[in-house]
Amino acid sequence: MSVKEIVVLPGDGIGPEVTKEALNILETVCKRHGHQLKTKSYAFGGASIDQFGRPLTQETIDACKDASAVLLGAVGGEQWNNEPKDKRPEAALLGIRKELDLYANLRPIKTYDSLIHASPLKPEIVSGVDIMIVRELTGGIYFGRPRLIEKTETGERGVDTKVYTTEEIERVTHTAFETAAKRNRRVTSVDKSNVLDASRLWRQVVIESASQWPEIELNHMLVDNCAMQLVRDPSQFDVILTGNMFGDILSDEASMITGSIGMLPSASIGKEYAMYEPVHGSAPDIAGQNKANPLATIASVALMCRHSLDMPDAAQEIEEAIETTLQDGFRTGDIASGDPDEYLVSTTEMGSAVLKHL
Amino acid sequence: MSVKEIVVLPGDGIGPEVTKEALNILETVCKRHGHQLKTKSYAFGGASIDQFGRPLTQETIDACKDASAVLLGAVGGEQWNNEPKDKRPEAALLGIRKELDLYANLRPIKTYDSLIHASPLKPEIVSGVDIMIVRELTGGIYFGRPRLIEKTETGERGVDTKVYTTEEIERVTHTAFETAAKRNRRVTSVDKSNVLDASRLWRQVVIESASQWPEIELNHMLVDNCAMQLVRDPSQFDVILTGNMFGDILSDEASMITGSIGMLPSASIGKEYAMYEPVHGSAPDIAGQNKANPLATIASVALMCRHSLDMPDAAQEIEEAIETTLQDGFRTGDIASGDPDEYLVSTTEMGSAVLKHL
Ligand SMILES: CC(C)[C@H](C(=O)O)[C@@H](O)C(=O)O
Ligand SMILES: CC(C)[C@H](C(=O)O)[C@@H](O)C(=O)O
Repeated sequence: MSVKEIVVLPGDGIGPEVTKEALNILETVCKRHGHQLKTKSYAFGGASIDQFGRPLTQETIDACKDASAVLLGAVGGEQWNNEPKDKRPEAALLGIRKELDLYANLRPIKTYDSLIHASPLKPEIVSGVDIMIVRELTGGIYFGRPRLIEKTETGERGVDTKVYTTEEIERVTHTAFETAAKRNRRVTSVDKSNVLDASRLWRQVVIESASQWPEIELNHMLVDNCAMQLVRDPSQFDVILTGNMFGDILSDEASMITGSIGMLPSASIGKEYAMYEPVHGSAPDIAGQNKANPLATIASVALMCRHSLDMPDAAQEIEEAIETTLQDGFRTGDIASGDPDEYLVSTTEMGSAVLKHL
Repeated sequence: MSVKEIVVLPGDGIGPEVTKEALNILETVCKRHGHQLKTKSYAFGGASIDQFGRPLTQETIDACKDASAVLLGAVGGEQWNNEPKDKRPEAALLGIRKELDLYANLRPIKTYDSLIHASPLKPEIVSGVDIMIVRELTGGIYFGRPRLIEKTETGERGVDTKVYTTEEIERVTHTAFETAAKRNRRVTSVDKSNVLDASRLWRQVVIESASQWPEIELNHMLVDNCAMQLVRDPSQFDVILTGNMFGDILSDEASMITGSIGMLPSASIGKEYAMYEPVHGSAPDIAGQNKANPLATIASVALMCRHSLDMPDAAQEIEEAIETTLQDGFRTGDIASGDPDEYLVSTTEMGSAVLKHL
């Protein structure tokens, strides 16, 4: 028996509700597999601003570094939108990614058969889609310097800098190829190398690194074309490898393949630490109403079991429980179609339904 | 009677074939409306590299500046992909945009009723969609300095710079609001102001400029969310205003709403000059085979009649002819569904069909 120490960052909006359900599930699978679960919660994002005047405290960072893994809910809300940039909830997210050096963000896009009709795309387009987006998370235009707004003679000038180094590209390429090796052995690297110099370096380093994986097929796609292909024919993709900003845009776009962003988990992984969170935001409009869909967070806990807790069987059990829960017709509002065979359930009811199917 | 002097840049791949059909149409409407059409062709992109060793010559630039408008086909092809960046076909495109100061790129995304089933999106999602994307075209990360790849102690480092000034944002905002005033009076400005400083300035300047158009509704959307909303519910948009890179990605994504990028025209407009071109590329795989869809280029000529040639009636006639040609079942390969009521036609046959419907 081992002890699994998890730091929980519930965050804002629906964050506390969805992490609570996911932790119930995690507790159950830990027990079943003979492990002890210890969790500690820390204020994060807006909640941390309200309590400590800062979106991310050193205490929280240190606790995350001591844990086996971190579970994050969501951050953000209207009431903090007028704060200066480094005091806004998003700064907590960018800060923790950088502090824990979580350079690879894994976002699986997989359609559930029972939700196929929830997609705005035609069933024949989305059926069987199973993509893993590997997004670089601690570099690119999100973190490059200089970044500033300065006065000019006639107005102002806003500047951001996109930077990628050989090392940054190599390590996330490594993650993408390792991932592809366990899947369908195809990597599509996405860049804008016909315009950007950082993208030219990106493509060159990806090609060089790829020689270590001769059994994996590599192809390259321009980001504009990829944005189109994800809608046109998403089943052509296995692993998509891309930079921070392109990954942000493409993964939100791709979420629509599955019908709801409320279904999508993510893992942010570095050499030493890992953090798990749903792709959706804090949804302040439905916060506290027991309406949010907890499945993305529950699926994030499955990823945690697989990648950080050495419990691959538990991961699979959770994923199968989600699947059968959906097959049995349980739906939160965001994924309900109005079909009479469906049961419209609350956040806690959905959590219990998955528990029962475990 | 006036003389309309058009510079034609057929470019590479299918460019010459599709511009030829579009010029036939333009000639016909000019005659009908009592104008004389004069055209001059210049090598551009790969064709110019082959002929003059450079993708864009000063002679071509000067000719464009003397014309009433410029019609561009498409550029690019495998054979030039290993040239250094400033000698590749794309450099002609970026060069002419900058030389003519074509800062506003208008990309209408409108579904044709008869093609609704060609879209990978469900008919009820795409029906009635009518979006105008206004993309800033001469600034942002496409042109900011520094841009370079440099050696570091341990590898290399690629750098690009995103820059926007107050003036650059103001003038394209102006275009977007003027456009919205003639449409449904709604502008969605798309940025990433929760992360980027240039985007914070973008949003601030858009808000300030918007006060000149109190009758137009302005809202703001983050680029990741917009990429999602374009798939989820594209009919929510009227005019989308955004920067160079985001506009590149979002407009290619949005092209899928209409079913084929082969249908989409564009106008690139500055204070003094204007250039018209299809959104699609040079499609080297089908070049010279009389298979390409000329409708995007024909629709670009309609935009030219409206915005540069003071022939709004001719514009509408062309657009209606495209519509009835489609209703009568004419289809090039890219938009054919296999329905027995359709006629599969070649590039030239499609051109003739539109001419007949004029
Ligand atoms: C909130 C924001 C800073 C963040 C990002 O852009 O990375 C979010 O969109 C995400 O994808 O996790
Ligand atoms: C060819 C390329 C440089 C160009 C761009 O990125 O602007 C193209 O994608 C476009 O959208 O016109």
